Amino acid sequence: MTGRPPLHYERDPRAIYAASFATVAREARLDRFPDGMRALATRLIHACGMVEVADRLAFSPGAYEAGQAALARGAPILCDCEMVAAGIIRRHLPAENDVIVTLNHPTVPDRARAIGNTRSAAAVELWADHLDGAAVAIGNAPTALFHLLELIDAGGPRPAVILGFPVGFVGAAESKAELANNPRGCDFVALRGRRGGSAMASAAVNALAAGLVEIAP
Amino acid sequence: MTGRPPLHYERDPRAIYAASFATVAREARLDRFPDGMRALATRLIHACGMVEVADRLAFSPGAYEAGQAALARGAPILCDCEMVAAGIIRRHLPAENDVIVTLNHPTVPDRARAIGNTRSAAAVELWADHLDGAAVAIGNAPTALFHLLELIDAGGPRPAVILGFPVGFVGAAESKAELANNPRGCDFVALRGRRGGSAMASAAVNALAAGLVEIAP
Repeated sequence: MTGRPPLHYERDPRAIYAASFATVAREARLDRFPDGMRALATRLIHACGMVEVADRLAFSPGAYEAGQAALARGAPILCDCEMVAAGIIRRHLPAENDVIVTLNHPTVPDRARAIGNTRSAAAVELWADHLDGAAVAIGNAPTALFHLLELIDAGGPRPAVILGFPVGFVGAAESKAELANNPRGCDFVALRGRRGGSAMASAAVNALAAGLVEIAP
Repeated sequence: MTGRPPLHYERDPRAIYAASFATVAREARLDRFPDGMRALATRLIHACGMVEVADRLAFSPGAYEAGQAALARGAPILCDCEMVAAGIIRRHLPAENDVIVTLNHPTVPDRARAIGNTRSAAAVELWADHLDGAAVAIGNAPTALFHLLELIDAGGPRPAVILGFPVGFVGAAESKAELANNPRGCDFVALRGRRGGSAMASAAVNALAAGLVEIAP
């Protein structure tokens, strides 16, 4: 022992969740959202520590219910990167839904060269057989979201819901604006602007799967 | 075809990286940082889409070089959650460093109950044999960072560098302030306040491993 004073902090997981979600509710003006989206916005804010992201949230009417229903009927979850998949809390999924990441499939680099796009975009082409009625969670690459929209424009299958959270300085804001302004018949949730990320994409999936189960009575 | 106009966006990965890092350089006043930290701050900002996080970055003098040297000599990377591990770009690691996550070890729930703390904190106790001289990357749980500091206070081994990016409303700001105000002889990088997350923790590791290799000439 070095004789340092003990550290005081909350150690009880249930108390931590309750206090976190209460802080979000106190600061984020959640009453602007319909019921399901309130839970989704709460988890989103909880994942990034920023209440103000609520101000930039775009979503289709009924997006939460559509995503929830898709997961309940066993829809696969298609993720643009491993981090999104790693953030999905498997025990909360209602139907042991498949969580699919194709980014590291061995054919992806060649496909990327062939289509003149990123590996993230090429990986989306490998979703084809799973995409109809699926939940899509994009937390990294703007090119994945852009290319998904291109494939839909070309007559490809439509997911039930697109959770659009690509992040960064090149294409993130633009791809999410394209989705929000023209969702092509899909339900969607997206965070407008540069912010986003895999933790938010995972949080959106977790919200569709289980709401705020950590503070359920 | 539905006859929609084609989407215009940048599809070349090298051009995307270059434009992203250039935007960061233009907006973030990186000249306030020493060389290595400039690369780390760039990757951090790139991971979250927010140039303003640079204003809240705390670090020990020489933190970048200490972390870089630790990785170069083969130090393991201890992560508080799977998302952080998933974000580490393995091909950039200089010594095929082990990336270790103990959160889902089967003994963790019992250990958490025994010590009256979270699973994230209990998982840190399983780092003991790897901790001396390691790189620690915390991107989720404040209790993991707090408990690491408690174990050091109790005479436990010291990592070479602590990358402190827990996120959220309960303990995140406090645990990072505790680290920054008293790093207990460890080098560290931390983002003060509520913001943080696994993408930032991974980005910090990737910066120590490879700087801005994507735009290297």
